[in-house]
Amino acid sequence: MIQMAVLGFGTVGSGVVEIIEQNAHRIERAVPEGLHVKYILDIRDFPDSPYGDRVVHDLDIILNDPEVRLVCETMGGKEPARTFTQKALERGISVCTSNKELVAAFGPSLLKTAREHNCSYLFEASVGGGIPLLDTLLSNLAQEDITSVTGILNGTTNYILTKMESEGADYKEVLSRAQAMGYAERNPAADVEGHDAGRKIAILSSLITGKNVGYEEIHVEGITGVTMDDIKAADELGYGIKLLGRCCVTEEGLEVITAPFCVKKSHPLYPVRDVFNAVLVHGNMVDDIMLYGRGAGKLPTGSAVVSDLIQMARADKPLVIRWDEEPMELVPFGMQKHCFWLRVENSIVDRVLALFTDSTELLHQDFSDFTVIMTGPVREDDFAQRTAGVEGILSVLRILES
Amino acid sequence: MIQMAVLGFGTVGSGVVEIIEQNAHRIERAVPEGLHVKYILDIRDFPDSPYGDRVVHDLDIILNDPEVRLVCETMGGKEPARTFTQKALERGISVCTSNKELVAAFGPSLLKTAREHNCSYLFEASVGGGIPLLDTLLSNLAQEDITSVTGILNGTTNYILTKMESEGADYKEVLSRAQAMGYAERNPAADVEGHDAGRKIAILSSLITGKNVGYEEIHVEGITGVTMDDIKAADELGYGIKLLGRCCVTEEGLEVITAPFCVKKSHPLYPVRDVFNAVLVHGNMVDDIMLYGRGAGKLPTGSAVVSDLIQMARADKPLVIRWDEEPMELVPFGMQKHCFWLRVENSIVDRVLALFTDSTELLHQDFSDFTVIMTGPVREDDFAQRTAGVEGILSVLRILES
Repeated sequence: MIQMAVLGFGTVGSGVVEIIEQNAHRIERAVPEGLHVKYILDIRDFPDSPYGDRVVHDLDIILNDPEVRLVCETMGGKEPARTFTQKALERGISVCTSNKELVAAFGPSLLKTAREHNCSYLFEASVGGGIPLLDTLLSNLAQEDITSVTGILNGTTNYILTKMESEGADYKEVLSRAQAMGYAERNPAADVEGHDAGRKIAILSSLITGKNVGYEEIHVEGITGVTMDDIKAADELGYGIKLLGRCCVTEEGLEVITAPFCVKKSHPLYPVRDVFNAVLVHGNMVDDIMLYGRGAGKLPTGSAVVSDLIQMARADKPLVIRWDEEPMELVPFGMQKHCFWLRVENSIVDRVLALFTDSTELLHQDFSDFTVIMTGPVREDDFAQRTAGVEGILSVLRILES
Repeated sequence: MIQMAVLGFGTVGSGVVEIIEQNAHRIERAVPEGLHVKYILDIRDFPDSPYGDRVVHDLDIILNDPEVRLVCETMGGKEPARTFTQKALERGISVCTSNKELVAAFGPSLLKTAREHNCSYLFEASVGGGIPLLDTLLSNLAQEDITSVTGILNGTTNYILTKMESEGADYKEVLSRAQAMGYAERNPAADVEGHDAGRKIAILSSLITGKNVGYEEIHVEGITGVTMDDIKAADELGYGIKLLGRCCVTEEGLEVITAPFCVKKSHPLYPVRDVFNAVLVHGNMVDDIMLYGRGAGKLPTGSAVVSDLIQMARADKPLVIRWDEEPMELVPFGMQKHCFWLRVENSIVDRVLALFTDSTELLHQDFSDFTVIMTGPVREDDFAQRTAGVEGILSVLRILES
């Protein structure tokens, strides 16, 4: 048996233990020695759990046991997860994680520590939950020049937007229901304000470039400003509103953004509903690839962690992920070009149309209480300047070009 | 440089060479030595090709060159592809292929030869073109009990069905257009009669069970019987018609079928249009995963071949795929249960409804010229027996349960 430890016995950690137990027959096909959870590190005790006797409160017990070859960190948050991961890697113990916050903030430095100590640091479960996304990008698409990655990367906000669309229910109403169902945290800021999706697109952008795309460098907007009027108008015009993380290689360089976008109903990301995630990858040879699945949850996320554990158990040498500490220079947000969607009061339609007369694809559609104007590609700073001080703009969204 | 040979310089083979040349900078990130196509085997000469000087007509030149470490077989068809593959593997040269016909027929015996000679045989490109499907099933989902795989596995038929639906055009008309555009062969039988999709679901079924699912054992129906009336009626009732390959672990055992199914518009496979393929995999822990991409074409398929080449180049030891020669026993077709969709003449509606009074979910909907009746789950042999000799049944389809 390959001995391992689970750090953090919360939702994902308990899922990992359950999968290793229940699917042992499958895991043994890939790792004939089998995986065995020798220790579970948590500050709590779990006297009623069948795994209660494996719980320890001191990391050193794990680090000082030479039998432990693998660790999975499912604690979440930056500390003490970072210190614990660092210590394990320094002992040459390979670590995998579902902790996107940690990976987005310290991915390159932890990967460096792993390289220096001849072990691996994997984080498949940190983006897209159960979807085998990172390994697909790094291994199966290694031959591709990836030119864009566009994803629905946050299940909570996708659930809220889907329910608003399908049930005509208000944002606040759907949010409280999502909280009651456990799909949203009591403090939903990280999800609804786009930070979670922003961290994930930072990780994906770093992996496709090999350099560090800092989460703080990315322009992030959430869904708190999206109203039922936006959703209804979008629907009538043949669009749905999705919170997207997007990175895109353009002539200017690498553009990264997280924001709600209007997505055409014929686009493969449009039908992705509820808590599902999906990521559309464009490669210069393979064209479009989309991966779809559950972006969160005990067992789907646990499954991705176990997949990393299997990879590390099978590997004869450290698994190398290229993500250097060197910062990746991004196209400044103001220089990014987008097609805009403006919902405006009827009284200012002519004024707004006059601002964008040079836009080749300018369209507008009257609704009874407001008008929607869709522009062609306009630079962000240019857009901000033109619309500055214009009163009567009810909402601004971007349109995903297909 | 890692020296390799390409067997067959047709569509896919030339794509492979193009990708290795154009994306060399990417490939070298994964394989620092780089890949070099030393030989191209073909019966033709290509004096105008920049690779013309690498063309040879004799396999022995390749086999007798000790520098050659990898071969990709992109010839198609059973012979001489089988003999050539066998000979290369017997020399310990790892081989990868896009040849689904060969893999479906001789996969287990070629894998056995590879094992015996300490080399690898990979075939990512044989199913789903550029979609990284097989490696995802075998590696990333190794921890899962896969309980079903349902896929749109043939781009030609999906193109035809999509165009019939979106343009209201007749089957024959769309088929000739698809032939003109190169999406369908001049002799389209392998595609439209379901054999191509059948071979692919045979490969997928074999990989998830580890035993051999013979292509000939699978019930296969094509799309030649699907009419515009079926498509219109399905559309009005909230369904689309898709040719699916499906394998499913039930209480009875493994059920495999290839046939046109009515797929609900809310199902993730419904929006898959034109020549795109998509495969929905259900695992006991990860739930639903869907992979989507181009199922055919020079560069997408070539990309999957190059991904296999990279895997083989990086591997320190042979890559093992478990697919034994031992036949997998399937649930006999007659014992499979499906929900049926019958389009019948109005005059026989009562008679048909009376045949299925025990079906709990029996629904029917009148159209002007015919009526559609949808049954609950009925055994195939039972269905055949009940409807035998009933005149006025215009078409029979199955309904994908979600």
